[in-house]
Amino acid sequence: MTPLILVTNDDGVHSPGIIALFEDMKKVGNAYIVAPDRERSAVSHALTLHRPLKADELRENVFSVNGTPTDCVVLAIHRILSKKPDIVVSGINMGANLGDDITYSGTVSAAIEGTILNVPSFAISLAGDKPFHYETAAAFATEIAKYILSRSLPYDTLLNVNVPDMAKNEIKGIKITKQGKRIYDNAIRDIYSPRGDKYYWIGGGELYWERGEDMDSHAVQNSYVSVTPIHLDMTNYEALSDLIKHPI
Amino acid sequence: MTPLILVTNDDGVHSPGIIALFEDMKKVGNAYIVAPDRERSAVSHALTLHRPLKADELRENVFSVNGTPTDCVVLAIHRILSKKPDIVVSGINMGANLGDDITYSGTVSAAIEGTILNVPSFAISLAGDKPFHYETAAAFATEIAKYILSRSLPYDTLLNVNVPDMAKNEIKGIKITKQGKRIYDNAIRDIYSPRGDKYYWIGGGELYWERGEDMDSHAVQNSYVSVTPIHLDMTNYEALSDLIKHPI
Repeated sequence: MTPLILVTNDDGVHSPGIIALFEDMKKVGNAYIVAPDRERSAVSHALTLHRPLKADELRENVFSVNGTPTDCVVLAIHRILSKKPDIVVSGINMGANLGDDITYSGTVSAAIEGTILNVPSFAISLAGDKPFHYETAAAFATEIAKYILSRSLPYDTLLNVNVPDMAKNEIKGIKITKQGKRIYDNAIRDIYSPRGDKYYWIGGGELYWERGEDMDSHAVQNSYVSVTPIHLDMTNYEALSDLIKHPI
Repeated sequence: MTPLILVTNDDGVHSPGIIALFEDMKKVGNAYIVAPDRERSAVSHALTLHRPLKADELRENVFSVNGTPTDCVVLAIHRILSKKPDIVVSGINMGANLGDDITYSGTVSAAIEGTILNVPSFAISLAGDKPFHYETAAAFATEIAKYILSRSLPYDTLLNVNVPDMAKNEIKGIKITKQGKRIYDNAIRDIYSPRGDKYYWIGGGELYWERGEDMDSHAVQNSYVSVTPIHLDMTNYEALSDLIKHPI
């Protein structure tokens, strides 16, 4: 049976990343886009509860929603698609989603929501400041989608995929990685307004990553596609046992 | 030596939760508030990089910042406080932060940022729709802060604390819990605009939790304070081994 594929993102329905992804997903199955009407990477990842949402059918199988990536996944699964999708694919994000940054990512959020709703899901991002090799990421999205459709994914677990911004033949392969760890520099520049008030501007620092060949960041830096299995359960069970032994 | 305590939240510097927390933290150490100038639970958790930020000293040891909870923690640690704090306490949030919802919580985000910057951190939330027993949560915040100051916390791990909204003498005790699992109902109501356009309004469904005596939600529902150790590393290591065995 032809698989039903839900494609979404946080850069908005018109972004080059989702269009490239959609074209390739149409070859894998019956693909639908349900995505935010505009860039929503700066909005909350939560559900929009304080106002009604509208879904507009822009063209065949393509819907835009005036809400968050999470809203899109919820409305797609409960209202827009005729049945539960076989897979949710979120991306292709314009920029990497590595290490602790995934906590803040709208792209990863949508895959989290898919996972919560028991649909195997993955997020795919193209690493780089102004990346443009979307065709490379879309090709790997196809491979990974086929893999998931044939094997599914463990309970409560999504895949976070990051693709280096280069031609496909320059990519060395796929590495299964663990979530990396950014060493925060958080350079802050002190600046003054025309009226002489002091302001702080965060950013401009160098980005460092903890070394480790098994890390997501290391794979991408070394021309590999990074695939990290992400678990929704963030409980630290070792710490849990320890806290029970040494009560508060 | 008197410990240095950073207090922040996502409900804003004027919220009753942070004021109650601050009063009790002043008894534990040298406490500072650095918190958003207004309610920021609907803004992104990420750092604000696209504009400069301003920190205003409202009164002794109390600063407001026109940014996110994460911005507040970064500016406090790198600029506003004279040295690195011994603990970051985020809250008291107006409403619970349980299960998968912690991914979306600004309150928990601030504790995550503290943890990333290697300061032992915890988030504290008062469960209930319109909770008002902030003095109960503040009392438990004091106990937990003293515990952490005497023992620290495991690497990359914060505590997520939820307090039932009741008088302290009604609370049965503290339970160390794992992150619960919401069973999403996501009821959606179809409504129509005055012009006849169809809209969807998410919400109004019942909230269910997976059963399990060790879950955060179960503790709070049964009049216990829930304390969950949360790990920043979300890698599912079992799935990682499995993916290496069955390559994509």
